[in-house]
Amino acid sequence: MELTIYLAGEIHSNWREEIKEKAKSLDLPLKFVGPMENHDRSDMIGEEILGEQPDKIFRDEAASSINNLRTQVLMQKSDIVVALFGKEYKQWNTAMDASAAVTLGKPLILVRPKELHHPLKELSRKANVTVENVDQVVKVLSYIFEDK
Amino acid sequence: MELTIYLAGEIHSNWREEIKEKAKSLDLPLKFVGPMENHDRSDMIGEEILGEQPDKIFRDEAASSINNLRTQVLMQKSDIVVALFGKEYKQWNTAMDASAAVTLGKPLILVRPKELHHPLKELSRKANVTVENVDQVVKVLSYIFEDK
Amino acid sequence: MELTIYLAGEIHSNWREEIKEKAKSLDLPLKFVGPMENHDRSDMIGEEILGEQPDKIFRDEAASSINNLRTQVLMQKSDIVVALFGKEYKQWNTAMDASAAVTLGKPLILVRPKELHHPLKELSRKANVTVENVDQVVKVLSYIFEDK
Amino acid sequence: MELTIYLAGEIHSNWREEIKEKAKSLDLPLKFVGPMENHDRSDMIGEEILGEQPDKIFRDEAASSINNLRTQVLMQKSDIVVALFGKEYKQWNTAMDASAAVTLGKPLILVRPKELHHPLKELSRKANVTVENVDQVVKVLSYIFEDK
Amino acid sequence: MELTIYLAGEIHSNWREEIKEKAKSLDLPLKFVGPMENHDRSDMIGEEILGEQPDKIFRDEAASSINNLRTQVLMQKSDIVVALFGKEYKQWNTAMDASAAVTLGKPLILVRPKELHHPLKELSRKANVTVENVDQVVKVLSYIFEDK
Amino acid sequence: MELTIYLAGEIHSNWREEIKEKAKSLDLPLKFVGPMENHDRSDMIGEEILGEQPDKIFRDEAASSINNLRTQVLMQKSDIVVALFGKEYKQWNTAMDASAAVTLGKPLILVRPKELHHPLKELSRKANVTVENVDQVVKVLSYIFEDK
Amino acid sequence: MELTIYLAGEIHSNWREEIKEKAKSLDLPLKFVGPMENHDRSDMIGEEILGEQPDKIFRDEAASSINNLRTQVLMQKSDIVVALFGKEYKQWNTAMDASAAVTLGKPLILVRPKELHHPLKELSRKANVTVENVDQVVKVLSYIFEDK
Amino acid sequence: MELTIYLAGEIHSNWREEIKEKAKSLDLPLKFVGPMENHDRSDMIGEEILGEQPDKIFRDEAASSINNLRTQVLMQKSDIVVALFGKEYKQWNTAMDASAAVTLGKPLILVRPKELHHPLKELSRKANVTVENVDQVVKVLSYIFEDK
Repeated sequence: MELTIYLAGEIHSNWREEIKEKAKSLDLPLKFVGPMENHDRSDMIGEEILGEQPDKIFRDEAASSINNLRTQVLMQKSDIVVALFGKEYKQWNTAMDASAAVTLGKPLILVRPKELHHPLKELSRKANVTVENVDQVVKVLSYIFEDK
Repeated sequence: MELTIYLAGEIHSNWREEIKEKAKSLDLPLKFVGPMENHDRSDMIGEEILGEQPDKIFRDEAASSINNLRTQVLMQKSDIVVALFGKEYKQWNTAMDASAAVTLGKPLILVRPKELHHPLKELSRKANVTVENVDQVVKVLSYIFEDK
Repeated sequence: MELTIYLAGEIHSNWREEIKEKAKSLDLPLKFVGPMENHDRSDMIGEEILGEQPDKIFRDEAASSINNLRTQVLMQKSDIVVALFGKEYKQWNTAMDASAAVTLGKPLILVRPKELHHPLKELSRKANVTVENVDQVVKVLSYIFEDK
Repeated sequence: MELTIYLAGEIHSNWREEIKEKAKSLDLPLKFVGPMENHDRSDMIGEEILGEQPDKIFRDEAASSINNLRTQVLMQKSDIVVALFGKEYKQWNTAMDASAAVTLGKPLILVRPKELHHPLKELSRKANVTVENVDQVVKVLSYIFEDK
Repeated sequence: MELTIYLAGEIHSNWREEIKEKAKSLDLPLKFVGPMENHDRSDMIGEEILGEQPDKIFRDEAASSINNLRTQVLMQKSDIVVALFGKEYKQWNTAMDASAAVTLGKPLILVRPKELHHPLKELSRKANVTVENVDQVVKVLSYIFEDK
Repeated sequence: MELTIYLAGEIHSNWREEIKEKAKSLDLPLKFVGPMENHDRSDMIGEEILGEQPDKIFRDEAASSINNLRTQVLMQKSDIVVALFGKEYKQWNTAMDASAAVTLGKPLILVRPKELHHPLKELSRKANVTVENVDQVVKVLSYIFEDK
Repeated sequence: MELTIYLAGEIHSNWREEIKEKAKSLDLPLKFVGPMENHDRSDMIGEEILGEQPDKIFRDEAASSINNLRTQVLMQKSDIVVALFGKEYKQWNTAMDASAAVTLGKPLILVRPKELHHPLKELSRKANVTVENVDQVVKVLSYIFEDK
Repeated sequence: MELTIYLAGEIHSNWREEIKEKAKSLDLPLKFVGPMENHDRSDMIGEEILGEQPDKIFRDEAASSINNLRTQVLMQKSDIVVALFGKEYKQWNTAMDASAAVTLGKPLILVRPKELHHPLKELSRKANVTVENVDQVVKVLSYIFEDK
């Protein structure tokens, strides 16, 4: 049984690579999907495909239409969603993805530094598990496959 | 036909009162519900009902369990969700509520100052309408009842 | 038992008034809802609420965001959807509303002049009943309340 | 991860072939399905299987029953729906398919020439992305698989 | 709390009246709905509204389109479905209604004479309760409202 | 793309074999599933697994519990349901299966001899297609895979 | 806004009366529903309506078919489910009702004495809130209606 | 066609091994999944991954968050749920899993010693089949694949 994991959250650090490597070193039957991690490409994809837009807001609107489609397709293919919040960015789209997952009945693992607990308390209560780092994410994923 | 509107979002300003008053002055058949607006009471409700908790994180966990129940009950009773984002707070729970609404098939009106467009672009694309102030919210709600 | 009927379709003729009057003369316990019937107001509502838009396409986009919200709210409140197609207009939004109704499990009555049968054949097969005029719509609605 | 794409829309031009070829030349892991593209066969399939029908309307009814079954089966197998509108035909069935897709939670890419924007504005707002040609469709599909 | 009960099944006996009277004599807060009980009107409603049909099969098709719409509307308004099978008629539509109710999550009470047990065994296992007469139906309905 | 077809209906004739052979001779990528076709085994499976039952009715109850489980599992795995009605048997369970399929959104092909049209008219209107023999079933299934 | 609360759990103590009285003394707009609280009547209802059964197991089967119908009807009418576990009884049906509520998206308040935490830990994690007494239940319900 | 079976229930006996061996000896195309069967590991997994917790209750809470995630993932992958109740343990989580399965539309086989019939009567009526031992479970599973 192979599981597909959607990795939602910030694209400014290499946390996805860490999870993939750890999972691989443990031979876990996991496939990972997620958003476009190249920030510039993610922001420019709207204009690149749809042409120049009237202003920055419409450029964002165009980009997010394509990024949302990607997220919707890949999340529907996933068995578990991992959502990571970092200290620097607002990441309302991560909260949006995490909440969509829970509402669709997809299990959610929330990752956040301890100091972000207060603003994330409601989402934390909706998540299946809340952890503080990617090591713990891999331990949770690994546990699903353990026999004894 | 009366509609029930859930007002999600920051509880540090009086935007809910403004909407209610404008709706009342237009005689719109609207009922408004929303989260506990008393910030302290919202944060302390967990310990008040469940007793003292081991630390701040568990206190938050306890409080959000009860606040999430309130939100779930009232949002299920609602026909439309309005989600307002202000400049100061992280409000990941507002993004969570807005996304839950969209995923459940409830129409969503997003309110945010123009300068927040970039971090809210994905949520904005999922909303039915994105506006910048509560006047516009009331105009959208009023339009639903207009005949000619 | 009162039923709410959503009247989807062209806003250039007075077919909705005809249905309402016939239903009233038969004392049927029906409430009717539907789109904004003032064509200009419907087209301009986006700019009126959201402000001037960069061009005609964005103006349309803005207007339809608000019109779609109205449709979504009122259709969710409805027990039956009536969708009328006339000879002159493309009315892809009417086909969109009709298909949304069927997919949501809402009964659909399709109204179209006989000569439109060929392009509407797929939608006709999905509808519960296809009729040619509003008299027939009222007869179908009336039949639901007949005892013997 | 292979995705299945349902290509809804007019069957009088070779746009489906174009998309398939471009996808193939990019080695995208896509499988394409869609309606019967032989117009005569599509129109006659009802009488061919069910026997002669009383008149043109019943012949259409018979054909569309079988075409709708095909669409329902293949769309349920699909991850994304692409709906193309051309200038000449009414294609209410394309609007029907597109709306069914959105209502079922399937991502929708709308393709239409710019001049059709006004009659398609409501459907455009419901689509994930609206583009003007098949090159853009392939770019959107390709973007889902891009890593960096 | 008032409950609405859909009474599916044969229209050749007066079992519905019996249930209504017994429920009334017990002051149960129940509202009853069901199919057109005038057999001729039920069979002719298609031609009456849609005009003469090519043959008996198309006449039946037309009638059942309108009867199915009535059933769909009223069953969606109901909290419980009662389905009665008698000895004489095939009543496949009663089995259809009963199965639709169960699949939609609506509680089902099946009524059938003992000697029909064998052909109804699968449906009986899907029903919440299987009884043999309308007295028992009323007792089951009454039990829902009993306090002690 | 392989499709799985559930063949509901009478188990007293060899219609399933006919369909399987015709599908095989056409190389259609179809997998067929269905109920236990050994009538005695189907009727006795309850007592065989659960032990002797108090009387015939409880024996039937026990058997149908296991047959219903089989149907539920296999129908959930299916893309299309074919339901065949013959002249001799009541087959309320076939109507039950057919209605469950439609309610779950699974496409339904109804097979019945012409003379059964009247008692099956409501189910026929809910089916995607109604045919009279298994040759027509195979033609409909084959059409789904036709390219041109 | 009135809310309906389903009170699941043991029927051997008077905890339901306590909740109702406290809610009444606070003027909370709540309506309470629940299972038959007369234990003997609950156990005998099957034989009373369906007649004598072959043995104790079939008597239980008959009774639970009618009790399950009552629960299903009343829980579907409810906005919140409260499930109380006491120290003495196995109450697997209470766990069944609580889990059905959560799976259906209904908010769940779990009540249990502290010493039952270990066997109830999985259900407790699925509940919105876990409390230890009925006073706390009423406080949670009351909080939903508080304004400031 | 391979089926996946979730084996819910007590982890103190080796009933899962028995089922797996019997299924293997019959060459049934079945894959089995289930909870962590190492009791200590199951109870300690919360602290192991999330760190030391304030007390026993929070330790349980932490463990069950991870065990519930495992159950949710694996049950969503399953076609059938088998739930076994033994004489010694309270196993409210087994009742929770069984009820979640039924509510999600997944077929349920209940296994319990005869003497537990009374406390399990409501769940038994919701299950597809209730048996007394694992031999019977394997016979039911085997029957799904029998041809004649």
